[in-house]
Amino acid sequence: MSDIITSLQNPQVKAWRALNRSRAERSRQGLFLAEGEHMAGEAVKEGKAQALLIADTAREKYRGLAKSAAGVTVWYLADHVIQVLCDAKTPQGIVAVCGYPFPAAIPSGAALLAALDGVQDPGNVGTLLRTMDAAGFHCLLLDEKTADPYGPKALRASMGAVFRVPVFRCSSLSDTLDGLQRDGFEIIAGDLRGESFFRRPRLPDKLCVVIGNEGQGISPEVMCKATMRLKLPIPGGAESLNAAVAGSIMIYDILRERQTEPFSP
Amino acid sequence: MSDIITSLQNPQVKAWRALNRSRAERSRQGLFLAEGEHMAGEAVKEGKAQALLIADTAREKYRGLAKSAAGVTVWYLADHVIQVLCDAKTPQGIVAVCGYPFPAAIPSGAALLAALDGVQDPGNVGTLLRTMDAAGFHCLLLDEKTADPYGPKALRASMGAVFRVPVFRCSSLSDTLDGLQRDGFEIIAGDLRGESFFRRPRLPDKLCVVIGNEGQGISPEVMCKATMRLKLPIPGGAESLNAAVAGSIMIYDILRERQTEPFSP
Repeated sequence: MSDIITSLQNPQVKAWRALNRSRAERSRQGLFLAEGEHMAGEAVKEGKAQALLIADTAREKYRGLAKSAAGVTVWYLADHVIQVLCDAKTPQGIVAVCGYPFPAAIPSGAALLAALDGVQDPGNVGTLLRTMDAAGFHCLLLDEKTADPYGPKALRASMGAVFRVPVFRCSSLSDTLDGLQRDGFEIIAGDLRGESFFRRPRLPDKLCVVIGNEGQGISPEVMCKATMRLKLPIPGGAESLNAAVAGSIMIYDILRERQTEPFSP
Repeated sequence: MSDIITSLQNPQVKAWRALNRSRAERSRQGLFLAEGEHMAGEAVKEGKAQALLIADTAREKYRGLAKSAAGVTVWYLADHVIQVLCDAKTPQGIVAVCGYPFPAAIPSGAALLAALDGVQDPGNVGTLLRTMDAAGFHCLLLDEKTADPYGPKALRASMGAVFRVPVFRCSSLSDTLDGLQRDGFEIIAGDLRGESFFRRPRLPDKLCVVIGNEGQGISPEVMCKATMRLKLPIPGGAESLNAAVAGSIMIYDILRERQTEPFSP
């Protein structure tokens, strides 16, 4: 295992490199790359790393991490080889190869959910995962049009949340929401024509916050599954909020409600 | 005015091009570039455009906008010339040249403020401006280390908020906060060792939310000016929130408090 891979033509390198290219490739190989000291460290800590790729010149720096990664294959790569696997401007000489983890169902017991309907910016997807991870939300639902949380930009924004918050990709988000509704979930959708988010009735224990596309918002077929349509007030001059910010404000306001006494609306 | 600029060597093109390069250059020329249909439109609408640069092939598309821009010089540029002025992957053939607007003082009557202490990601600065604009906050204070809100990435994230929310660059943020405190402002700082943000006492009418650096948080010399140290609860696995998200959650929770009855903490 201590040989150094020095060729960009190495078939293994070619396969890893393809993982940064597209969701289809990640899905085909069942793998994604988590790059940099923080992300690779999180992957190892959370037991999600299948292999560690380390720059030959960074062997000393990551000796401890490599040692702590029991059962994980470690590969050493020449610097120019590891660099082609990295998306960051200043690569840190370490990449974890992780399993592409889409569970077959929403984990049982998951009560605090968020769902993304056509969110296109991978940075927004990653940032929302990070907020969910902070707030203790249990599972993220994605429709088919939403950006992949396991691409390089989303991973960078998620700061390791992808290793803790399960992500369920729905073949039909509206069908999934239908099922949740029958199961007693409140389905909360942002709607510019809705009531103020801050004047809502108290929420039940099981809920799903739906966040729509950056430009178009929530699609009609998903909107009609909402049991509560609410809007964040915009008293100022802006037309709208960033999608990740709007979702994060709703998630944290739900956390606030759960941590404090009811307030009179 | 209807001649077409076709050369990248044109001295005027060189001067415009330099504006996307650095804050120092924007400050030297007293100008910045707002690119794309939405941003250029906002610049014209808010009376902030000094010149409009339009791709020769997009003349028809922007004829209405150019006509509505009374007193604004319009230049037509060959496509390859306007492209070097654009940061977007798919340039839209229009750029507004705007005055670089740092007021000499915080506008009188400004009561809802936010201050950035070493926020480095221009996307975070732009996103926070957008949230402030939505929530009706009055002025953003920046320390010297914070990213420039008038660079391309921050402008894109701000979605036009830069044309509505005044930005005051402090030579010393801690001195400015000192003055605000004497003037009766509550200075609210995010502090991981502070009380829960959601269990704070009701806030006064004049306040300033301080948001710190992405990695280090708020610097000690600024932290000691805080009159209230609060933390957003993080019951989940994440170590922290994105800086723009954390600031936006605080800003919107302050808006919620002002729009609803007091709640018992």
